[in-house]
Amino acid sequence: MKSKTRYLTFNTKTRNAFVNITEDVQKVVNESKIKEGICLVNAMHITASIFVNDNEDGLHHDFEKWLEKLAPHAPTNQYRHNDTGEDNADAHLKRQIMGRETVVAITDGKLDFGPWEQIFYGEFDGQRNKRVLVKVIGD
Amino acid sequence: MKSKTRYLTFNTKTRNAFVNITEDVQKVVNESKIKEGICLVNAMHITASIFVNDNEDGLHHDFEKWLEKLAPHAPTNQYRHNDTGEDNADAHLKRQIMGRETVVAITDGKLDFGPWEQIFYGEFDGQRNKRVLVKVIGD
Amino acid sequence: MKSKTRYLTFNTKTRNAFVNITEDVQKVVNESKIKEGICLVNAMHITASIFVNDNEDGLHHDFEKWLEKLAPHAPTNQYRHNDTGEDNADAHLKRQIMGRETVVAITDGKLDFGPWEQIFYGEFDGQRNKRVLVKVIGD
Repeated sequence: MKSKTRYLTFNTKTRNAFVNITEDVQKVVNESKIKEGICLVNAMHITASIFVNDNEDGLHHDFEKWLEKLAPHAPTNQYRHNDTGEDNADAHLKRQIMGRETVVAITDGKLDFGPWEQIFYGEFDGQRNKRVLVKVIGD
Repeated sequence: MKSKTRYLTFNTKTRNAFVNITEDVQKVVNESKIKEGICLVNAMHITASIFVNDNEDGLHHDFEKWLEKLAPHAPTNQYRHNDTGEDNADAHLKRQIMGRETVVAITDGKLDFGPWEQIFYGEFDGQRNKRVLVKVIGD
Repeated sequence: MKSKTRYLTFNTKTRNAFVNITEDVQKVVNESKIKEGICLVNAMHITASIFVNDNEDGLHHDFEKWLEKLAPHAPTNQYRHNDTGEDNADAHLKRQIMGRETVVAITDGKLDFGPWEQIFYGEFDGQRNKRVLVKVIGD
C-alpha cells in the first residue's frame, strides 16, 4: 500500500467563502502515483468544511443565505461558546451542516467523479491561514 | 491491497425517494473477496445522498417532511441557482443535510453494521438515471 | 495492508450527551501499529453520531439547543416513526445533522489533526449500551 499526505493552506478575503479545490486535490493524487484507492480530504479547522457539490455561483449564494438562516451569526450573544471571547459559534454549527470531510474513490489514477462533482473548501470564519489535509492511500 | 469498483444506477418513479441498497452493496463486497477493509458508497450526482439510518417507512416520511421544512422546494424563485433554468436548488441543499457518502468497515467479508444500520440512496431530483459508486479496498 | 477493529461501548447518564473519545481512538491506532493509513470511527446505532469539533462546553450547549430547534423531541406525535411505539424520531434526525462517522488520516502513527480537532460521540437517545466501531487500515 502506498500513501501520500499533503497540507493545503487557504486564507480567504471574506469571512465566508467557497473555494473550488478539485484541481489541487487531483494534483496530490497525481503525485501519489496511486491508481486504485481512496482520497480523504478534510478541513483541519473546526469552523470550515470540505464538501462536494456544484460549481455554480448562484448555488453558493443560496448555500450562504440558507446557512445563515439555519445558524445565524448575529446576535452573537445567543451562543454560550461566544462567552469565551469568540464570535464564531455559528461557524462551528454551519460546518456540521456542510461536513468536515469527503472520501473520494481513485480509479485509474483519477478522482472518480460524476459529471458535476467538484470539491469545495467552505470557510465560515476566514481571513486567516487555515489548513486542509489531503491523504491518498492505495496501490 | 485489493480493490473493487462498481457503479449502480437508479431511476426513481418520484422526485423524492429513499431506496434501501444494503444488499446491492454487500454483493459488491462479496465479489471483491475482501475480508478486511473499508467500503465507500457515494452518490455521483449532487442532488442525491447516501446515508445510513433505519429501514422504517414512517421515519422516511418524517425525513421527507423535515427536509422540506429545512429546504423547501417552492417557491422555486427563492433560489438563485434556479435562475439558470433549473428547479432543483432545494435538492442540492437537502443533499448536504443527508450527506454525499458513507464509509463502512468490512470485517470478515461483511459490512460491519450495528443491528439497525442500513444503507439508503436518497433521491431529491429523480425520474432519470443517476449513479452510485461503490469502492471496496482491503485484503 | 494491516488492519485493526475495536468496538467501544457507551452508556450515557442523560438522553443527550457529547463524549470526547479522541484518546480512546488514538489507543486503537497505537495498538494497530499502523503508521500511515486511515481510521474510520462510526456510531453503530442510528440515533447517535460521531463528529469532529471543539472540546468546549459552551459550544456543546449550543449544539444541543440548536439541534432541539432544528429537530424538536416534543411533541413526539409529530413524527410517524413514533407511531411504532418509539419516541426517538428526533434522534434519527439529529444524527443526520451531526453525521454517522468520521474518517481521520493516520500520519506517523498519530491521528493527523489540526490544533482543535477532537472526536466526539454524540448521543441523542442514551441511557443504554450503544457501540462505536473503530477500524484502522494502512501499513
